Order: sequence, then C-alpha cells, then structure tokens
Amino acid sequence: MPWKDIASDKFHRLFYPQVPVLVTAQFQGHVGGMPAIWCMPLSFKPPLIGVAINPEHETYKIVTQAQAFALNFVDFRHVKQVGELGETSSKQRKDKLSSVGFRVIFGESTGQPLIEEAEAALECRVHEQHQTGSHQLVIGDVVAALGSDSFEDYWNFVRYNPILYAGTEKVNGKCWVFRSMRGEKATVPLKAQA
Amino acid sequence: MPWKDIASDKFHRLFYPQVPVLVTAQFQGHVGGMPAIWCMPLSFKPPLIGVAINPEHETYKIVTQAQAFALNFVDFRHVKQVGELGETSSKQRKDKLSSVGFRVIFGESTGQPLIEEAEAALECRVHEQHQTGSHQLVIGDVVAALGSDSFEDYWNFVRYNPILYAGTEKVNGKCWVFRSMRGEKATVPLKAQA
Repeated sequence: MPWKDIASDKFHRLFYPQVPVLVTAQFQGHVGGMPAIWCMPLSFKPPLIGVAINPEHETYKIVTQAQAFALNFVDFRHVKQVGELGETSSKQRKDKLSSVGFRVIFGESTGQPLIEEAEAALECRVHEQHQTGSHQLVIGDVVAALGSDSFEDYWNFVRYNPILYAGTEKVNGKCWVFRSMRGEKATVPLKAQA
Repeated sequence: MPWKDIASDKFHRLFYPQVPVLVTAQFQGHVGGMPAIWCMPLSFKPPLIGVAINPEHETYKIVTQAQAFALNFVDFRHVKQVGELGETSSKQRKDKLSSVGFRVIFGESTGQPLIEEAEAALECRVHEQHQTGSHQLVIGDVVAALGSDSFEDYWNFVRYNPILYAGTEKVNGKCWVFRSMRGEKATVPLKAQA
C-alpha cells in the first residue's frame, strides 16, 4: 500500500468511525452532557471504562464535582440532538440535556442523569483520573448497566441503529458527519460554540 | 425506554460496533500482532493513543520488551485475517502476521512491523502504562502516522470500508461477527486458542 504522511493533528481521525457516547452528569441540580468519541471499556473485573475529555468542557467540571457520571448510547434517529450537544456548552444552561429535547431521569445507583430515550446507559463513579496531554482520562467504575430489549447477550441491531461518527465535511458550511451500519449518512450543521 | 439490568460481564458489549485496530510489535525478530477493540486516541498534543490489553497476550509481552509498537487499520476484505489474528497466539510463531497471510514491512521511525495491506498505520513508542483492573492500559506516543489515498483530511470511505466488530454469534459453532457501514456482515469461526 503506498502511504503518505498524515499530519499529527489528524492522526485521531484514523480511528473513525466511532460510536459517540453521551457523557452526562449533574451536580447540585446543574445538568450537563456532551458526546465523547474517545470512550471505551478498560477492564472486565472490576468493570471499568475510560473517557478522555478536554478539561475545558463544562461537563468535565460537573463530572469532577459530582465524582460520578453516566454514559448513554442513543439511536441514529437522535443524531441531530447528539450534534447539538456537541456544539453547545452546559455553562449557561441549568439542564443542557432537556434544552436539546432529551428527557432526563436520574439513576438509582448514583443519582446521575440518564437519557430516557437512550438504548442503554452505564452509571459510573469516578475511579481515578490521569492527565494525558491535552485531555483528562477519567476512569469510571461501572456501578450499574441498563439496556433496552435491543440488547440480549449482544446488541441484536434489529431496532437499535448505532450512530457512527465519521468527522466533518463542508455542505453549505461545516457539518458533523454521522453514518450508520445501514448505509445511512446524516449531517448536522456546526454552529459557533455557545 | 424500559431498561433491564445488564450483567457486569457484558457491559463492554454496549460499546459495539468498534473498529478492531491491529496492534503489531517485534522484539529481536519475534513478530506478534493482535486485534484490539479497546483502543482510542487520548491526546492531540502531544499525540497520544491508549490501548487496553490483557497482559497474558504474547503481543503485550513483545510490546513491553520493544517499548514500541504499531497500530494498523485494515479494510473489510481482510476480515478473515483479523479473526485469525484474534484466535491464535504469537507464542509458537516467529512471525504471526505472515502466518495469517499479511505482508510485513518495518517502520522507519521505530523499526516496528507494519501491515503492508493496511489502509493506515501509526508508529508508536510506549509513553507509559497503567494497570486498570484486568487489563494494562498502554499509552503510546504517536511518532509517525501513515495513510493511503483513502485518507484526505478525513477518511473518504470511497474505497476504504472499515471493519466494525459486533461481537459473536452461533452459526455452526461460535463465530466472530463483523459488520460494515455498507450493510455487510461477515462471520469468522472461532477455533480454540492456539
């Protein structure tokens, strides 16, 4: 395969497509949330996950205050809301999740916000953090895992159609690009960060 | 959404589908490789990636000896070889990559093995490691990033058709299941670990 060099500010895009996981957290009634592409399991036993977050995000600050958070997996039909969560800040909003049209319930194990429309959610407590360059790697203990009937031993992918984040492109201005395993493609216009 | 509890040994499957990245490494001529599902970027600056590996894998031992490794992204047409890499060990093989039919070249920056058929490869040096429960989180400095013409500012997905790991199912015995963004599905029979 003839290869060319890829600039160091683009290497992360080789990992696309990736499922955007919605990180949600609340502290003293302030509810935040953001899509995270850099999120994966880290251990079977104990069950641990890792999510790398730019510490300037308001949601990161809420996670640190709460020392707990949730991860939510949503269907492709919510792609527009995922894009909106990605381009607005929790700073000026008491409840960013509701502001983009998601219904919020609170987890029984942690009191953290879960997206009612989600196909699955993990309730987590902060286990530890490591600074890794530009990002904070937040490692979470999974204290509860909840899923819809689309998950048996695995996702059956009959109803649940996961979102696959694939980058950006220019279509009347810059847009987020999302794809699915069914050949679908959706674009969501990028607004300025609010 | 009505949810049910998901057993703690299955929570990681909520993250599927995930692109299986091939981790390759060599030390003193012993070439190993394995697919890793738990692999993602961790930092823009410096460019860092993280891969969580069960430390019993021979490839992990080679990575630790070499203090360097590579990540390779291969097309859906190589799905059978990816499955084979996942179910054989590097222990009794001088070059596991060649044994499953991949051509191996060595990276200019690290001397680590790269899969010539890959659409992209990252050469990495071990930055640090953290034990995270059952797995070792190996954090790598990206010292070189190489890609085919399928990658411009992003993957264009015209030719490159990424593999999406989706779990296992029973089809005349247990099989790995791989999917694509084009609606394809491939199964690879699971043999006993060699």
